[in-house]
Amino acid sequence: MSTSQPIADRPLAVVLLSGGMDSCVTAAIAAQQYRVAALHSDYGQRTERRERRAFEEIADRLAVEIRLVVDQRYMAQIGGSALTDRAIEVPDADPAAAESGEIPVTYVPFRNAHFLSAAASWAEALGASKIFIGAVEQDSSGYPDCRPGYYRAFNELIEVGTRPETRIEIEAPLIGMSKAEIIERGAELQAPVELSWSCYRDEDPACGTCDSCALRLAAFAKAGRRDPIRYKTD
Amino acid sequence: MSTSQPIADRPLAVVLLSGGMDSCVTAAIAAQQYRVAALHSDYGQRTERRERRAFEEIADRLAVEIRLVVDQRYMAQIGGSALTDRAIEVPDADPAAAESGEIPVTYVPFRNAHFLSAAASWAEALGASKIFIGAVEQDSSGYPDCRPGYYRAFNELIEVGTRPETRIEIEAPLIGMSKAEIIERGAELQAPVELSWSCYRDEDPACGTCDSCALRLAAFAKAGRRDPIRYKTD
Repeated sequence: MSTSQPIADRPLAVVLLSGGMDSCVTAAIAAQQYRVAALHSDYGQRTERRERRAFEEIADRLAVEIRLVVDQRYMAQIGGSALTDRAIEVPDADPAAAESGEIPVTYVPFRNAHFLSAAASWAEALGASKIFIGAVEQDSSGYPDCRPGYYRAFNELIEVGTRPETRIEIEAPLIGMSKAEIIERGAELQAPVELSWSCYRDEDPACGTCDSCALRLAAFAKAGRRDPIRYKTD
Repeated sequence: MSTSQPIADRPLAVVLLSGGMDSCVTAAIAAQQYRVAALHSDYGQRTERRERRAFEEIADRLAVEIRLVVDQRYMAQIGGSALTDRAIEVPDADPAAAESGEIPVTYVPFRNAHFLSAAASWAEALGASKIFIGAVEQDSSGYPDCRPGYYRAFNELIEVGTRPETRIEIEAPLIGMSKAEIIERGAELQAPVELSWSCYRDEDPACGTCDSCALRLAAFAKAGRRDPIRYKTD
């Protein structure tokens, strides 16, 4: 599962760990070669309490010693998304809308830049050489900040915007995978997906019908595996 | 001083208004053509209370109705800078170090990305077409995120990372100016620089000896004008 190099001697990587399935598998991938520093953002999302528990439990399981939770709840003040603005309802999944390429109401304007900026600042302060993020282009509900070109642009920004001697690169190892492939990769690595949390709407059990639950359940079905977490629709 | 177009009909611009002299002059420039939405970040800087007062007073004077203060104090947790980490002392200005191109201890790793990400999210939520920032390359203490290439890279990131129909561009109108030129431009526009605050160390009066005070005082001397704010060294 991991290299034979002692963890303390490995290069350091900051991993964005929301507590969702994708970030859980990403953390397991990073932990194979790097000493992981796990970063979690509270950005005022409805299900933060449950996500935070998932973050801590996944980090415990992966023996992550360096952790930071950043309070980015100002993102909820900025509004414009159903994930943070309680005046906008989280809709049920709509496969037709997803296929149209339309950007859904759960999109938080420019959200990933806030996470990546925190990761880049922390990486520079810690001396980490990598930032891992569990972004997925396909099945990603059409969010514009989940595409490879976005990460190329962010890497360029880090290159020009940090100290000359700083070398930090973003890795998005899942970017080209389908959700079913991510589940397979997680199973190979024994990533603790049973501790992860994806629902946009509820805290426990998961609603089973929002965009995020629907994608997750469809992916488990496609991978021929049973999702180990609990759903209202079970 | 401004176009004859009524303010309510003008395009909207988000202006990053720290409360310092550069952002004050930048806001006055933006207010000539745009309806201004002023954004201020509390990032755990030592002199935030004084800066916030400068932000509010400048915004009042420029009749800015749309204002947002974001709590980005997690930046102080990330540390690595004398501006946010109270364990690192703010040094007196050292012209030799500035000329060496060395990056000073007051540098907050990747700081401007946090401000610009907040500005871009807010601009997208408000429908603003511009983001103004008072970055200055020359006299900027060698911070890597105060160079034109950094803003080109950030504009590219906004282009790829927002909704397809979103058009937001960063303007850094002072980027090529000297501090003395900024003072002249501020005087032409009657920018309320007497309400601005630049000191890294104290709340009132300004210390007069930190990097930021030293640059400001030297610039006023060069412009042949008297700095209207109070200094301990007066």
